[in-house]
Amino acid sequence: MNAYPQSIIKLMNEFGKMPGIGQKTAERLACYILKQPVEEAMQLAYAIRDVKKFIKTCSICFNVSEKDPCHICSNTQRDNSVICVIEQLADLLTIEKTGKYNGLYHVLQGHISPLDGISPESLTIEGLLQRVKSNHVEEVILATNLNMEGDATALYIHKQLHSLGVRVTRLARGLPTGSYLEYANTAIVSDAISGRNEMRSS
Amino acid sequence: MNAYPQSIIKLMNEFGKMPGIGQKTAERLACYILKQPVEEAMQLAYAIRDVKKFIKTCSICFNVSEKDPCHICSNTQRDNSVICVIEQLADLLTIEKTGKYNGLYHVLQGHISPLDGISPESLTIEGLLQRVKSNHVEEVILATNLNMEGDATALYIHKQLHSLGVRVTRLARGLPTGSYLEYANTAIVSDAISGRNEMRSS
Repeated sequence: MNAYPQSIIKLMNEFGKMPGIGQKTAERLACYILKQPVEEAMQLAYAIRDVKKFIKTCSICFNVSEKDPCHICSNTQRDNSVICVIEQLADLLTIEKTGKYNGLYHVLQGHISPLDGISPESLTIEGLLQRVKSNHVEEVILATNLNMEGDATALYIHKQLHSLGVRVTRLARGLPTGSYLEYANTAIVSDAISGRNEMRSS
Repeated sequence: MNAYPQSIIKLMNEFGKMPGIGQKTAERLACYILKQPVEEAMQLAYAIRDVKKFIKTCSICFNVSEKDPCHICSNTQRDNSVICVIEQLADLLTIEKTGKYNGLYHVLQGHISPLDGISPESLTIEGLLQRVKSNHVEEVILATNLNMEGDATALYIHKQLHSLGVRVTRLARGLPTGSYLEYANTAIVSDAISGRNEMRSS
């Protein structure tokens, strides 16, 4: 490894710290930076600096934004009677992309996972309860992941919200569109059967 | 896509410009930067800046280094009668890792590829010829890739070197160690047969 000068090794190490970037990829990325003209390469450095400088966490929903409250919380066009609770930022974008949702969000910043030392207190659940208590919220959609941690987190939040008399929903479970019954596992098919709907003629 | 603030979109775009980084990965990397403490995230920005600031191209072999001549060219322990010609920087590291080579290098900065507009003149071949002419070089190992472009580049350089009376070698072609004959293609097996060696008792 000492065939590279120190500053290149440092750059590789920094790339290698990022998720999904192995040693080989880190090497390729560092070589790419080496080959780029200075101005081009510095664009990435500037972009990192600007993100750390300008991006704030929204004090209402914990989304990230250049302003606080964020561009979603401060958008008067959005339906503020519905809050969609998600584990992380990336989930927000996934939902926004569908164009099917016009309510607000609440980013939990993780899921409950006692084994990893993540208790309900380390998430933003308290903030969610405050929002529901002090605003006219009609529905809370629990859009945590459909796995064990996501389910446990949803269950915990459901219990907390129960006494507040708000409608609490969970994302639908079933067979993913485009999939084949033959290849779906038992848990998925069970969900699809118990959640079956009346067929609507389109 | 406009669910993210401008500076995050800019960061995603910058990550997305890098080789092998698709839109989804760029998004994940940007989210990683967002989550990191400022000092941690800035390490990557500083590493990029330092590489562009301190790294020079060696005027002898076109390797990159913090000094010129590079740490390999200026290493008196290395055998300066052998030059290994490679297409790019990453190949240098691959060879260094084997620990089997103690000579010098010459980085071509690409391969001849008329379709992509890469003529012999845009590579560092002229510099290689100068090195062979003005130094006591006994062997030039052509370690370009074992594909069409690499072979064509090796052939071109071989022709140029021919009149200089230096020994010109090419990396061995054959079956890769650990592979199964059954799965090797015809070209590889042909190479392995024509290049067969006397068996040595170990």
